[in-house]
Amino acid sequence: MTHRILAYPGRQRQLEKLIERLGLPNTAPINWHLLHLALTHPTASPKENYEQLEFVGDSVVRLAASELLLELYPNQPVGEFAAVRSILVSDRYLASIAESYGLGRYLIMSDNTARDRAGAQSRLANCFEALLAALYLSTHNLDLVRPWLDPHLLENAENIRQDPARQNYKAALQEWTQRNYKLLPQYQVQETGSIGDEERFTAEVWFQDRKLGQGKGRSIKAAEQVAAQVAYRLVHFPTEAEETR
Amino acid sequence: MTHRILAYPGRQRQLEKLIERLGLPNTAPINWHLLHLALTHPTASPKENYEQLEFVGDSVVRLAASELLLELYPNQPVGEFAAVRSILVSDRYLASIAESYGLGRYLIMSDNTARDRAGAQSRLANCFEALLAALYLSTHNLDLVRPWLDPHLLENAENIRQDPARQNYKAALQEWTQRNYKLLPQYQVQETGSIGDEERFTAEVWFQDRKLGQGKGRSIKAAEQVAAQVAYRLVHFPTEAEETR
Repeated sequence: MTHRILAYPGRQRQLEKLIERLGLPNTAPINWHLLHLALTHPTASPKENYEQLEFVGDSVVRLAASELLLELYPNQPVGEFAAVRSILVSDRYLASIAESYGLGRYLIMSDNTARDRAGAQSRLANCFEALLAALYLSTHNLDLVRPWLDPHLLENAENIRQDPARQNYKAALQEWTQRNYKLLPQYQVQETGSIGDEERFTAEVWFQDRKLGQGKGRSIKAAEQVAAQVAYRLVHFPTEAEETR
Repeated sequence: MTHRILAYPGRQRQLEKLIERLGLPNTAPINWHLLHLALTHPTASPKENYEQLEFVGDSVVRLAASELLLELYPNQPVGEFAAVRSILVSDRYLASIAESYGLGRYLIMSDNTARDRAGAQSRLANCFEALLAALYLSTHNLDLVRPWLDPHLLENAENIRQDPARQNYKAALQEWTQRNYKLLPQYQVQETGSIGDEERFTAEVWFQDRKLGQGKGRSIKAAEQVAAQVAYRLVHFPTEAEETR
């Protein structure tokens, strides 16, 4: 199965370069039209953009991560798999892979969007998922995805498995308070900045009338994670954490 | 790619019958060992069972549903897709497909488990997901899955799209209260039965100091959904709902 090339030679050449950067042969049976869509932001075309591919891509990356984890750690309990997979498919992590390929430079978008730095991470994660869908739908299998995605997932899977909090400090802190006190920590969040601001929200985490930590973030969730990380360190490494508070 | 048949002729014949029931040719390149695992409950074998395949299968069904929805409704907004997909991949729905093939009869499990009727739905959904993974991993594409799964998904996708609450009454109720009052409904849940009991939890949903509905269920979520359904009917069809309260 081969696909016609795009009617715009400049865009075609640009996308061929991207395929080369991923390490795929230029004879790969790419559906160039889908790849072009995957790298078109809704502000550039309200109808022909990455949104629908992103919807499929979210399942593609989940499947690729699941297969890899099963191959890598055939004897791990599934709870372990699920914890690692949820990080591998997170926006934050996918955006970091996209960034390593400079994917933002291939994305067609309005000038206003390009200036919106606060939205960059979710934009990158979205078009990266759409790219995975375009490659999957080119062959209806993972032959164009796993050869270059696997090494990224593999490296990160190992890092995650060595981090006791699994990069999710809210969950880790909650597990600790429940195990030791059968109680949950309480979060208090205030809006202390404006939309798009990296420090828009300030979260405090309290446990048994004691404030264990505080953090700021662009979203409520992000602020709570930072607060939970401070608290997690405090309860696990009291001396070290007090110094850096 | 072909796979050796199982060392147990009885089990092999049983699984061949299942493949026939799904409408697949018996020459299909099935990995019979994986299929056997997919239909082995952890109580029958603590190490060689469906758990890891289920982990992969959850991504397989998500991908199959995503691809189908994109093909069926290429011009739908993605919000619509996501709502329909979340129902198509739900335990409740997957268990109903598994049931239509009598999948429970192919599942090897302990006698105690077989008697546990309350756990039947999640058991069926789990081994069904594992079955999808076994078929996917037999070919590393959806060639053995989509031909027989698509008609089920298709029929249900249409039903869901015709149901204004999308079978998720909590979400539908919340959307309504937010749109009309910019406030969320409040749920109060009590444990009123024992584990495994169909009416283990009782949920009440309150809005602006008024109890809008009450429901019971095996899980907190199930009880809340029933309560939300009562409330949803009340706010949308006040006369009819009052009569059936």
